[in-house]
Amino acid sequence: MALFHVRMDVHIPRDLDPQVREDTIAREKAYSQELQRSGTWRELWRIVGQYSNISIFDVESGDELHELLSGLPLFPYMDIEVMALTRHPSRIDD
Amino acid sequence: MALFHVRMDVHIPRDLDPQVREDTIAREKAYSQELQRSGTWRELWRIVGQYSNISIFDVESGDELHELLSGLPLFPYMDIEVMALTRHPSRIDD
Amino acid sequence: MALFHVRMDVHIPRDLDPQVREDTIAREKAYSQELQRSGTWRELWRIVGQYSNISIFDVESGDELHELLSGLPLFPYMDIEVMALTRHPSRIDD
Amino acid sequence: MALFHVRMDVHIPRDLDPQVREDTIAREKAYSQELQRSGTWRELWRIVGQYSNISIFDVESGDELHELLSGLPLFPYMDIEVMALTRHPSRIDD
Amino acid sequence: MALFHVRMDVHIPRDLDPQVREDTIAREKAYSQELQRSGTWRELWRIVGQYSNISIFDVESGDELHELLSGLPLFPYMDIEVMALTRHPSRIDD
Amino acid sequence: MALFHVRMDVHIPRDLDPQVREDTIAREKAYSQELQRSGTWRELWRIVGQYSNISIFDVESGDELHELLSGLPLFPYMDIEVMALTRHPSRIDD
Amino acid sequence: MALFHVRMDVHIPRDLDPQVREDTIAREKAYSQELQRSGTWRELWRIVGQYSNISIFDVESGDELHELLSGLPLFPYMDIEVMALTRHPSRIDD
Amino acid sequence: MALFHVRMDVHIPRDLDPQVREDTIAREKAYSQELQRSGTWRELWRIVGQYSNISIFDVESGDELHELLSGLPLFPYMDIEVMALTRHPSRIDD
Amino acid sequence: MALFHVRMDVHIPRDLDPQVREDTIAREKAYSQELQRSGTWRELWRIVGQYSNISIFDVESGDELHELLSGLPLFPYMDIEVMALTRHPSRIDD
Amino acid sequence: MALFHVRMDVHIPRDLDPQVREDTIAREKAYSQELQRSGTWRELWRIVGQYSNISIFDVESGDELHELLSGLPLFPYMDIEVMALTRHPSRIDD
Repeated sequence: MALFHVRMDVHIPRDLDPQVREDTIAREKAYSQELQRSGTWRELWRIVGQYSNISIFDVESGDELHELLSGLPLFPYMDIEVMALTRHPSRIDD
Repeated sequence: MALFHVRMDVHIPRDLDPQVREDTIAREKAYSQELQRSGTWRELWRIVGQYSNISIFDVESGDELHELLSGLPLFPYMDIEVMALTRHPSRIDD
Repeated sequence: MALFHVRMDVHIPRDLDPQVREDTIAREKAYSQELQRSGTWRELWRIVGQYSNISIFDVESGDELHELLSGLPLFPYMDIEVMALTRHPSRIDD
Repeated sequence: MALFHVRMDVHIPRDLDPQVREDTIAREKAYSQELQRSGTWRELWRIVGQYSNISIFDVESGDELHELLSGLPLFPYMDIEVMALTRHPSRIDD
Repeated sequence: MALFHVRMDVHIPRDLDPQVREDTIAREKAYSQELQRSGTWRELWRIVGQYSNISIFDVESGDELHELLSGLPLFPYMDIEVMALTRHPSRIDD
Repeated sequence: MALFHVRMDVHIPRDLDPQVREDTIAREKAYSQELQRSGTWRELWRIVGQYSNISIFDVESGDELHELLSGLPLFPYMDIEVMALTRHPSRIDD
Repeated sequence: MALFHVRMDVHIPRDLDPQVREDTIAREKAYSQELQRSGTWRELWRIVGQYSNISIFDVESGDELHELLSGLPLFPYMDIEVMALTRHPSRIDD
Repeated sequence: MALFHVRMDVHIPRDLDPQVREDTIAREKAYSQELQRSGTWRELWRIVGQYSNISIFDVESGDELHELLSGLPLFPYMDIEVMALTRHPSRIDD
Repeated sequence: MALFHVRMDVHIPRDLDPQVREDTIAREKAYSQELQRSGTWRELWRIVGQYSNISIFDVESGDELHELLSGLPLFPYMDIEVMALTRHPSRIDD
Repeated sequence: MALFHVRMDVHIPRDLDPQVREDTIAREKAYSQELQRSGTWRELWRIVGQYSNISIFDVESGDELHELLSGLPLFPYMDIEVMALTRHPSRIDD
């Protein structure tokens, strides 16, 4: 398996149709919760003071991660940073 | 409780006495594993290709986090970035 | 308690409806003054030459801070930087 | 009067003589506490995870601030950022 | 007195009504020349190749400087950097 | 499989013992050529004008990549940037 | 021959006519695949999580590369970084 | 005489009237070629992969350079960086 | 004539022989004051909180400025930024 | 042929043996002047206020440029930036 640290900063344009905005956010939530239930989207936190999140993904590979990220309903309105993670030698468990 | 996202980049000086280096790294490991066992140091990953880690701390407050970080044996050799995290509205559980 | 240093840079879009602009700024002022009276928004200064402020928040946790910041009427038009503070060992009083 | 926001990042060289280091830090503390008592060094906080502080100075002018900062025992080992502050229009009191 | 070094980068939106643009630039010139005559706006140079200036202000305090800068007709279209200056020990006169 | 784009900037300290330097560079070459022969280190180019390279690694996972990179004889003297790659939809073959 | 490493970050404006968008992307794909078949566009990877690619071009010269890049249908919507590459001394083959 | 190194990055807004765009580019070319013939605009190269140029100007002074640059038809759509150059001691001729 | 805005950040190495340090600083002061008397070094201010200055030079050309700056006794220990200035159209006098 | 724009910032370590320093600078000058005579090192200017140069190289390819740059006697003490140039469409001659 492959662990990735992903930061997503969301910038929804002000002039996006309100209904489109609402639907997109709702679809984003559903999309994310489904991946959380499957264990793929392993961690999801809000960064205090920002419309941004830190997420940890547990995927087969970078290919799968790109599919998931580029499929995010909010993807067109996001700045995304991806970092590959690996097991830390001091970690007490796995 | 308070969640913090911490990135630590380690730069141990080349001319540090080898024995001091070894002891410091060993004390760092023990220090970290004790905090992991207590649940304070909740997540610890190595960033691929870097002598760096991403950690998630679950502490009482920023005060406690500062105590923990400034008490790290490797603290003098670290660049540290701290970000406060909070619960994400799409998170399915807690 | 938790102390946070927050910098807010305000960028209100030029084409925002003037009435909306005025109301938002008025609500922002009221929102901020209420939090100042409660002691939560402990310090508030204008940065010379900028439509920006430096604020010090005294809150229960990062969770509460995020609620307050994301609830700011001007939040959609702000770049926000958050830094956790702790007591300085040389501080003569608290 | 003039308000200044000052960030100080301290980088004491590793090879500084331990006794010099100790004396300098002690003199820095005494120097700072005297200015705190006089109300000049109005606020002093530690940034969580950093050997850095955020300070608020209440001085006659930039001239006085420079005297104070360049007189800091740790001045040679500091990166310092200075920002002029002014009264925020939403501030409820002064 | 307080000396401040100010850099102003001007970005007038292309779609600003030409008449508004012309009036604003005219008011800016008058505003600046009045302050130059009073000695407050002590120096004003154009940076070669930029729609920017370097200015030196001689004011009572940061408060006054903020009043002057935020009152600039072009203020909404400016990126402004402010640096407090003080007397240099090698300066031959004052 | 997982594809990674890696940039390595090499900064060998001037005061490294010449013999150690020579051995390390020789071991680095052998280490790299072995991985090139196995197909793991798929591409290796020198950046014109820099003591740096761009490499493409074809590995099982981020874990394996970290093992390889942190095992590089020159690792202690390198700044390394890692980017996960995936198949481009316009790629004509694979 | 000359090898170039090129990073392309694509930012297609939201308000681009959907049909123009679709045609441009189709023409981009055809343009790229033709160059891939000729061996000029030697490598093309997607950066995980980004609407960006890393490409390796094998061209006669910088002149030819500029022709190719500035002729890209998506050129007006791209941030492009170009780096000249050369043969790495440790490369096992050519 | 004074030598200046100038980098110009051109960002013509997408919604500029096509005819205005064409005229402006034509006037820019004529303007530049006239200055090249006079020897003032001594060198002009395109940066590979960018709508940018590197130019060398041989002018009386910064004043003259500013007149030339701010008079460029494309000036409103340019990011410009200016660096003063001087004779290099190793230069074999002048 | 040519006006230049110069920022100088001074970083004197800690291990510089104290006598060399003192002499160099003294020679720097004499060097600067002579140029101030000649009107070449027209303005010299200390940046509050920094071992840095902002200077305005009034010289024949960039060539002369380079001679002056590279001849500064502290030149080897300085980061220097140079910006060409020109007359601002709103300036009331010259 | 291939044109490259190269910026070289020189940082000779203070503790380099003075004789080594002098020889290296002499060899650098001879090396550069030979390449200037051959037309390869086509332009060489000093950046005002910096121990840096802007050079234009006219070489067969990036490979040749890397040979030349990495063969510079001062190469170990340089930060180098390389940009590929191409003919500008407005250039009046070649």
